[in-house]
Amino acid sequence: MAPLVVDVHTHVYPPAYMEMLRGRKTVPYVHDPAGDADPRLIILSSDDDPSIPLDERGRPVDASYWDIDVKLDFMRRHGINCSAISLANPWLDFLEPDEAQSWAERINDNLEETCARVNRVADPEKTLTLHEKETLYAFGALPLSAPDPGIVVNEIKRLKSLSHLRGVIMGTTGLGKGLDDARLDPIWAALEETGSLMFLHPHYGLPDEAFGSGDAMNRYGHVLPLALGFPLETTISLTRMLLAGVFDRFPRLKILLAHSGGTLPFLAGRIESCIHHERKFIANGGDVPGPQRSVWDVLKTNIFLDAVVYGTAGLKAAVEASGGADRLLFGTDHPFFPPLDSKEGAEWPSVTTNYKAIHAAFDQDAKEVAGVLGGNAARILDLR
Amino acid sequence: MAPLVVDVHTHVYPPAYMEMLRGRKTVPYVHDPAGDADPRLIILSSDDDPSIPLDERGRPVDASYWDIDVKLDFMRRHGINCSAISLANPWLDFLEPDEAQSWAERINDNLEETCARVNRVADPEKTLTLHEKETLYAFGALPLSAPDPGIVVNEIKRLKSLSHLRGVIMGTTGLGKGLDDARLDPIWAALEETGSLMFLHPHYGLPDEAFGSGDAMNRYGHVLPLALGFPLETTISLTRMLLAGVFDRFPRLKILLAHSGGTLPFLAGRIESCIHHERKFIANGGDVPGPQRSVWDVLKTNIFLDAVVYGTAGLKAAVEASGGADRLLFGTDHPFFPPLDSKEGAEWPSVTTNYKAIHAAFDQDAKEVAGVLGGNAARILDLR
Repeated sequence: MAPLVVDVHTHVYPPAYMEMLRGRKTVPYVHDPAGDADPRLIILSSDDDPSIPLDERGRPVDASYWDIDVKLDFMRRHGINCSAISLANPWLDFLEPDEAQSWAERINDNLEETCARVNRVADPEKTLTLHEKETLYAFGALPLSAPDPGIVVNEIKRLKSLSHLRGVIMGTTGLGKGLDDARLDPIWAALEETGSLMFLHPHYGLPDEAFGSGDAMNRYGHVLPLALGFPLETTISLTRMLLAGVFDRFPRLKILLAHSGGTLPFLAGRIESCIHHERKFIANGGDVPGPQRSVWDVLKTNIFLDAVVYGTAGLKAAVEASGGADRLLFGTDHPFFPPLDSKEGAEWPSVTTNYKAIHAAFDQDAKEVAGVLGGNAARILDLR
Repeated sequence: MAPLVVDVHTHVYPPAYMEMLRGRKTVPYVHDPAGDADPRLIILSSDDDPSIPLDERGRPVDASYWDIDVKLDFMRRHGINCSAISLANPWLDFLEPDEAQSWAERINDNLEETCARVNRVADPEKTLTLHEKETLYAFGALPLSAPDPGIVVNEIKRLKSLSHLRGVIMGTTGLGKGLDDARLDPIWAALEETGSLMFLHPHYGLPDEAFGSGDAMNRYGHVLPLALGFPLETTISLTRMLLAGVFDRFPRLKILLAHSGGTLPFLAGRIESCIHHERKFIANGGDVPGPQRSVWDVLKTNIFLDAVVYGTAGLKAAVEASGGADRLLFGTDHPFFPPLDSKEGAEWPSVTTNYKAIHAAFDQDAKEVAGVLGGNAARILDLR
C-alpha cells in the first residue's frame, strides 16, 4: 500500500473571495477579459504595471483556484489522501478595518463547510481511516486589519469550534508593522493557549530595487521575486520574531514555515553567529535585550517546515536544522506553479520534483519518507 | 600531523587604503576619534547615521585590519597554514573613474609584495611543502569604475604576471548595473581565458525597507543586514548571471561564492522550478531567451563555495548542491566577527564554529574533512 500522503501547503480562493477581488481596482484585484479567456489575478504590486494591457496583466487563473472539485481531482492524480487547505495570499491583509471581522468569519465558515461536505461524502459512516479516503482540513484566515487585536483573538478562539480547522495562516505584516510588533502579544498568547498551529507564508517579497530595479523584473518575469524574494521574506519575518524575544515570551508557539523555512535552515548558523557578535545586545555590553533562546533551539522546538523546496540540498538542510525528519511535512503549493503545457490529466512537475526529492533525500529510510509524506502531518495536525 | 588548513576568505585593508578612506567624508570612510580609541570604519550606508556621534559611528577597527603580522598571529593561533588574502569590501567600487586603474595596480602590487615577503621569510630555500610553512597568496582587486572595461581586462591579464595572485575578488555591482550586464562580457572572457577564479562577495545587502525600515535596524543592529541581507545579495547576483545566460556564453567561468553561496545551495531547486514555470522564457512560449544550463549544472561545474556557514545544516546543503565535498573550501572572514570580549590570545568563536561544523558534517570521512580544510584550496588555487 502506498504511504499516506497529506498536503499541508495548498491554497484556495473561495468564489466569494474571487467576487470581492472582481470589485476592486487596486492590488489585489481580478480582471475578466472579454470573451472566454481566463480571469487575470493581480496580487503582486510589481504585476500592477499600467504599461501592460489589463487583459495580460498578472497571471491567468482557472477553476483550480476556486473549484474544490478541481482540487480533489488534482489530489487523486497525485496520490494525495488529505489536504489542509488555506486561503491564498494576500489573505485578508488589505481589507478596510470595518470589513475584516465579517470577511474572516465568512471565509472560515466557508472553509469549514467545504471540508465537512467533502469529508461526509468520503466517509458517510465514519468508519474509514485517513488513509482510506479523500479528505480536507483547513487553516483559518485572520482579520488582521480589524480595529482591535481583540477581534483577531476572538476569531482564533472561535476557530476551535469549527471541527475541520487546524490552525491559522498568516502573512508577514501582522498588524501592519511586521511580526516583531509587541501589539501582537495577545495574538501569540491566544495561539499558544488554544494550541493552534500558525502557517507563516510570504506574499510581499522584497523591494524591487533588491533585484536591480525594473530591468531585471522585465527580463526575468517572476523568477527573482518568487524564487528569492518570497523565501527571504519568510526568513526575515521569523528572524525578527526571534530577535524581538517572541519565542522567549511564548515558548509554546507552533509555527509551520512555508517553503521549508524560506532560507532559515541554511542561514540559522549565520543568524546565530551574528547575534553573538552584535554589540547592541545586553549580553555583549549593549542596551537591547536580544533573544534568550538560540535559533537552533527554536527550530527544534517551535518550528515545522513544509517540504516544498524542490531538491535534496534544501531538504538535507531542513532535516539537519530541525534535528530530524519528523518536523518536515509534504506540500504542493497548489494551484500555483501549474505545468505551462497543461496536458489534460498529467502530473505536475512542481509536485513530482518534490516527491522525487523526498524519496532521494531519505532513500535509506522508508519510515522517514512515510513521515514526511503524511505521517508527520497526521500526528501534528491531529487528522483522522 | 594535523591536516593542511587554507583560509580562502580573509580580508585586508592595506595601510594605503586606510589612508585613502581617512581622506573621505562619505561612505566608505574612516574617522579617527580623539585620544587613543580605535579608528571607526564606516562602510555600510546604514551605518552613516548623522544621529550617531562620529566617534561611535560604524565599527571600531584595529591593527588586525591592516597589519599583516596580526593576521599571521591569527593564523598561528587557529592552525591555519596558508591564507589567500583579499581586499575587504567595498574594494575599489566607489573610486572616481580616473583613479581606479592606479589604485587597482597599487593595491595588487602591494598584495603581491606582502605575499612575497612573508613567503620568503617562511621558506627562504624553497624546500618546504605548503603544509610545513606559513604562507600567503592573494585575490586581486579590479578597477571596475574605470572609464573603459578594457582597463579591467588589462588588470586581469596583468595579475597573471604577479606570482602570488590567484584570481580576483568582486562585489555584485559590476560596472554599476549588476553582474547580468552585457557590458561585462569582455571581463568574463578575460577571466575564462586566463583561468582566473573570481571570488564573489557581498557588500550592499538589501534595501533597508526589506527589514522593516529604521525600527528593526535600530533594535537589532547589524544582525538582519549581515545575517540575511549579505547572503541574499550574493544569491540574487549569481541568479541574475544565470538568468542572463552568462554561464551559457562563458561555460568555463570559475566562481568562488562567499558564505557558502549566500543561500544558493538551499534555493537552487526553487530557482530551477521558477525558471521552468516562467512564461517570459522562450522555452515556455515567451520571447526572452532564458538560461540554457540548469542551476544544478552550474553549481557542479562553475561554482566553488567557501565553508563559512556556521553550522552543519548549511554545509550539508552546500555539499549536496555541489555534488560532493571537493568544491567546498575553509574560510574565516577574518578580521570581521572578532570575539567581543577579546581575551588576548584566545581562539575566535566565529572560526571554531566553522571548524566544528566541518568536523561534524563529515565525521565519517577524514579525507573529506582534509579536503575542505585545505586540500581542495591547494588543488583549486594551485598553492605550493
